[in-house]
Amino acid sequence: MQDHITDTMSKLNFNPSQTSGKTITCKAAVVYGPGQPFVVEQVQVDPPQKMEVRVKILYTSICHSDFDAWQGYNEAQRAYPRIFGHEACGIVESVGEGVTDMREGDHVVPIFNGECGECTYCRCLETNMCERFGVDPMKKVMFDGKTRFSTVKDSKPIFHFLNTSTFTEYTVIESACLVNLDSHHPPPPSTSSLNLKKLTLLSCCVSTGVGAAWNTANVQPGSTVAVFGLGSVGLAVAEGARARGASRIIGVDINPNKFIKGRSMGITDFINPIDVEKPVHEKIREMTEGGVDYSFECAGNLDVLRDAFLSAHEGWGLTVILGIHPTPNMLPIHPMELFVGRRIVGSVFGGFKGKTQLPQFAKECMNGVVNLEEFITHELPFDQINQAFELLVTGKSLRCLLHL
Amino acid sequence: MQDHITDTMSKLNFNPSQTSGKTITCKAAVVYGPGQPFVVEQVQVDPPQKMEVRVKILYTSICHSDFDAWQGYNEAQRAYPRIFGHEACGIVESVGEGVTDMREGDHVVPIFNGECGECTYCRCLETNMCERFGVDPMKKVMFDGKTRFSTVKDSKPIFHFLNTSTFTEYTVIESACLVNLDSHHPPPPSTSSLNLKKLTLLSCCVSTGVGAAWNTANVQPGSTVAVFGLGSVGLAVAEGARARGASRIIGVDINPNKFIKGRSMGITDFINPIDVEKPVHEKIREMTEGGVDYSFECAGNLDVLRDAFLSAHEGWGLTVILGIHPTPNMLPIHPMELFVGRRIVGSVFGGFKGKTQLPQFAKECMNGVVNLEEFITHELPFDQINQAFELLVTGKSLRCLLHL
Repeated sequence: MQDHITDTMSKLNFNPSQTSGKTITCKAAVVYGPGQPFVVEQVQVDPPQKMEVRVKILYTSICHSDFDAWQGYNEAQRAYPRIFGHEACGIVESVGEGVTDMREGDHVVPIFNGECGECTYCRCLETNMCERFGVDPMKKVMFDGKTRFSTVKDSKPIFHFLNTSTFTEYTVIESACLVNLDSHHPPPPSTSSLNLKKLTLLSCCVSTGVGAAWNTANVQPGSTVAVFGLGSVGLAVAEGARARGASRIIGVDINPNKFIKGRSMGITDFINPIDVEKPVHEKIREMTEGGVDYSFECAGNLDVLRDAFLSAHEGWGLTVILGIHPTPNMLPIHPMELFVGRRIVGSVFGGFKGKTQLPQFAKECMNGVVNLEEFITHELPFDQINQAFELLVTGKSLRCLLHL
Repeated sequence: MQDHITDTMSKLNFNPSQTSGKTITCKAAVVYGPGQPFVVEQVQVDPPQKMEVRVKILYTSICHSDFDAWQGYNEAQRAYPRIFGHEACGIVESVGEGVTDMREGDHVVPIFNGECGECTYCRCLETNMCERFGVDPMKKVMFDGKTRFSTVKDSKPIFHFLNTSTFTEYTVIESACLVNLDSHHPPPPSTSSLNLKKLTLLSCCVSTGVGAAWNTANVQPGSTVAVFGLGSVGLAVAEGARARGASRIIGVDINPNKFIKGRSMGITDFINPIDVEKPVHEKIREMTEGGVDYSFECAGNLDVLRDAFLSAHEGWGLTVILGIHPTPNMLPIHPMELFVGRRIVGSVFGGFKGKTQLPQFAKECMNGVVNLEEFITHELPFDQINQAFELLVTGKSLRCLLHL
């Protein structure tokens, strides 16, 4: 393993002994206001403090959550200047005091939904919430109330994002929000550049989607599934259901281009709501003798959510919500509708306890249980981050990988 | 066993050989319009048809569902004249063609949520719904579209109620909606009059409440529970949680009289919302380090439902809805609130598959696992059914048993 690390380091021109303990000046994509273009410029990155890790980002990709936060839809969550990004793969440059589960040179994946390992939630097997490092869109600074990023010109603080901030050559992340892929024996074969690219997706979309199918819904072989919204997360749900042996996976989206991609992720039937004269749930119930065993809502739309709920079979059908619903409106379900045995639950980060479970999941992905390559539809140099955003927003890309 | 039956028959002056195949004229409590007093009068009860059973009712009690239906709140569910009642215990007088799982003299408990044993739902272990004989407040007649009750004077049809109609000396019920307590070996000791009285409660309230704790929530030893609404169903939930070894059971009701009864059903703490200055869920979260493991809503009120939901612990807390919600309003839960890991489900008839599982449950009750006696607070002759209704509506009784 040490050979691999040395090899990777030399390829990257990466020499932690020269930077450890010092402020690093490097390139980052900084946003100065809601919806304003990313400015790729030099920033200063402080050394990691207690229980923090400074990471050299190798690859990062863009998720719809970055887009929403970048737009600044929610005023309370705004903070500028800021470094967005939460889906990435990197290599440890240096660790702060008290960090014992990773060291320089280790390959790591940031997780926006951390795992301290000590709180009531982390000690409970039924949840992947963490009291201290759970997903928190309001969080803008590190635990000491300060940022580790600052502008080169006047040393003004640059805010963090979603426990991670990965649109930068170097970032500082709490160790609870980093998964060490090299710490497990045998470690997953993570150091080839192809593998590192693929493991980037474990930071968010693939873990969220596959985990919702595996952990939250526990999809059974031979079962029927409907996925509403075929972005990366929805397609990852389909891929997870396919890997678990679902017999029928119905994909629903208004963008017919998604259907082409969906076939390789196991989707067996497509419904474009525009082409169907009846409500989608009626169509699905006709197709499946009363409804699917599992439906997944990945669109963030309440009408779609109701369709997903009514597509599930009475008696045992389970609906899993993955979509982010910014509306103030309540669940479009009547309390009595739960009496026919349909169930509905939420899923965050696919129910994975990141630090504990992601190394094993990474191995399964590398062994081909889950097909990751199909998700990377574009690759661009980091400088072209604005173009990468455009590809996502226009629905042209699933994941555009930025090379740092 | 045969001795028991003969003994019971003679005590009851019950001689099926003289009535089998003939129309029986007997006493019933008939309702002629919404909220109108029960008229105890002679009615005619036809012999059972194919897959039906005619039952001599020994005891019947009154549930809030009878009250709601009697009031005729829901116009679409109205039908008069009608015989209400669904919680009872009786003895088989005769069986129709094709009934093989019970015979004259067997002790039976009617179940409003039947089990045909053959439909997709009955064959699925995850649900207690039945495609043909599930709970249906709209149903007023037997499968052939006719009634088995008629007036003596002019032979006008008298409508059925909730698959059962037990406010009568004799009723006709589909065999799918009758549990035979004598068919299992060894049969439960059901033939003493005390035991028969207690087993009446298995028709509805005790099975619904205890089953919600055992089957739907699967309450674990040492866990914490909150029950909102301490009628018979709510107290049965508490009793079920106590039997499962819950360490703390918090009862919530605005009627302080319920608290006295609740202590013997295992309730450890009481909250009267009138006495608390903060929202009840805040109080419960303070008392339980963040919330209970299970909360049960037995009040049929959306504000209470939200309180129950927010009383459950983030990450793993489960809310079970048992209350009937006649409001057109939707679930008072935001979709994003499911992302913190709280879950909510409905429970009908405690999740019990009646014909399959109630005989074993009856044995456990007779063995003292569940304490049934406390639920029977009053007993009256059948003729005084109007007084029994008054006791329920004014909150003075839990269950008033009517003797036939």
